[in-house]
Amino acid sequence: MKKVLLFFGLIGLACFVQAQDIKLNPPTRSGGKALMETLNERRSERTFVKKEMPVQMLSDLLWAANGFNRPDKRTAPTASNKQELELYVVLDDGAYFYDAKQNVLKLIAKENFKAALGQPNITDKAAVTIVIVADTGKTSSKFAYLDTGYISQNIYLYAASAGLGTVARASYNGAEVFKALQLKEKQEVTLVHPVGFLQ
Amino acid sequence: MKKVLLFFGLIGLACFVQAQDIKLNPPTRSGGKALMETLNERRSERTFVKKEMPVQMLSDLLWAANGFNRPDKRTAPTASNKQELELYVVLDDGAYFYDAKQNVLKLIAKENFKAALGQPNITDKAAVTIVIVADTGKTSSKFAYLDTGYISQNIYLYAASAGLGTVARASYNGAEVFKALQLKEKQEVTLVHPVGFLQ
Repeated sequence: MKKVLLFFGLIGLACFVQAQDIKLNPPTRSGGKALMETLNERRSERTFVKKEMPVQMLSDLLWAANGFNRPDKRTAPTASNKQELELYVVLDDGAYFYDAKQNVLKLIAKENFKAALGQPNITDKAAVTIVIVADTGKTSSKFAYLDTGYISQNIYLYAASAGLGTVARASYNGAEVFKALQLKEKQEVTLVHPVGFLQ
Repeated sequence: MKKVLLFFGLIGLACFVQAQDIKLNPPTRSGGKALMETLNERRSERTFVKKEMPVQMLSDLLWAANGFNRPDKRTAPTASNKQELELYVVLDDGAYFYDAKQNVLKLIAKENFKAALGQPNITDKAAVTIVIVADTGKTSSKFAYLDTGYISQNIYLYAASAGLGTVARASYNGAEVFKALQLKEKQEVTLVHPVGFLQ
């Protein structure tokens, strides 16, 4: 009986941990503003109004940024198809890994890590901050930054299309972000991208 | 009388040289496919059908890539707003500089420079090859590559929206491209981008 209880106890624990992941919705692969209008409205915004982002919008934002638009390829290309970049997400309640294949935000740790992102005047009121992370074991630094630009532009354009604001930021506490996201030796943060509401 | 003839002769010469520039049309700042559909269709294409690109399409492509969407800012951001990137264009008949402010392609030299771009199987049938050039006196190499990614993604997305094909290429004859475009000491080619018709 004790073993049975332990067994169900462990299952319960596993469910509990999994329950802290955020299941994303299937991304909306159509709609949004027309491309030329979106490009015309692309800009950097640093002042946000604090609001929670609905799950569908978060799902679409992340898919637009670096989701799979084919079984093995993404909305953003990478040099020689190295696919060395992954997205992490910092919300008020914790840090998550964007599992683009499973379409889920995997919880890394429940803690407010926003201080590590720097510039609280921008970051604090953002609904979400996307952190772009390169696996430097897969490609050169030059290409990691080139490829980061693709994802960052996708974020800018999604924001312009959805009426949100965003700005690419290179100033953050690298060591603290590295620790918060529990990164490994060859991983390197290339950019942080707060996204927020304008009104 | 000789002086008058010489004067008008020089004006005529000036007009003749200017006539070899390509005056672009005002860019279409609306229309195109919806953003999410465009992102869903973004991909690399290496096989083109040889056709000449109409001036309006060329104008829209270049504006989408790195045109001004505000008096002093562009469709693609640059780190710390250094605006260190400019576009050059290689057509069958010569090489041009994209003067985004004046909305004109300024002739550099009338000569077929396609061999310098490498990979003739891709380049020869492209309607146009955009060459992204960084002024390394204005920013670091890291940020020049990051910023190149923004422009490159704009080209990918314009192509997806307009039913064209494109691929970012890092393999080219650097010294020959440098010479063909008559670049200066601190200028550096970061990427070449053939764009062509798929049918």
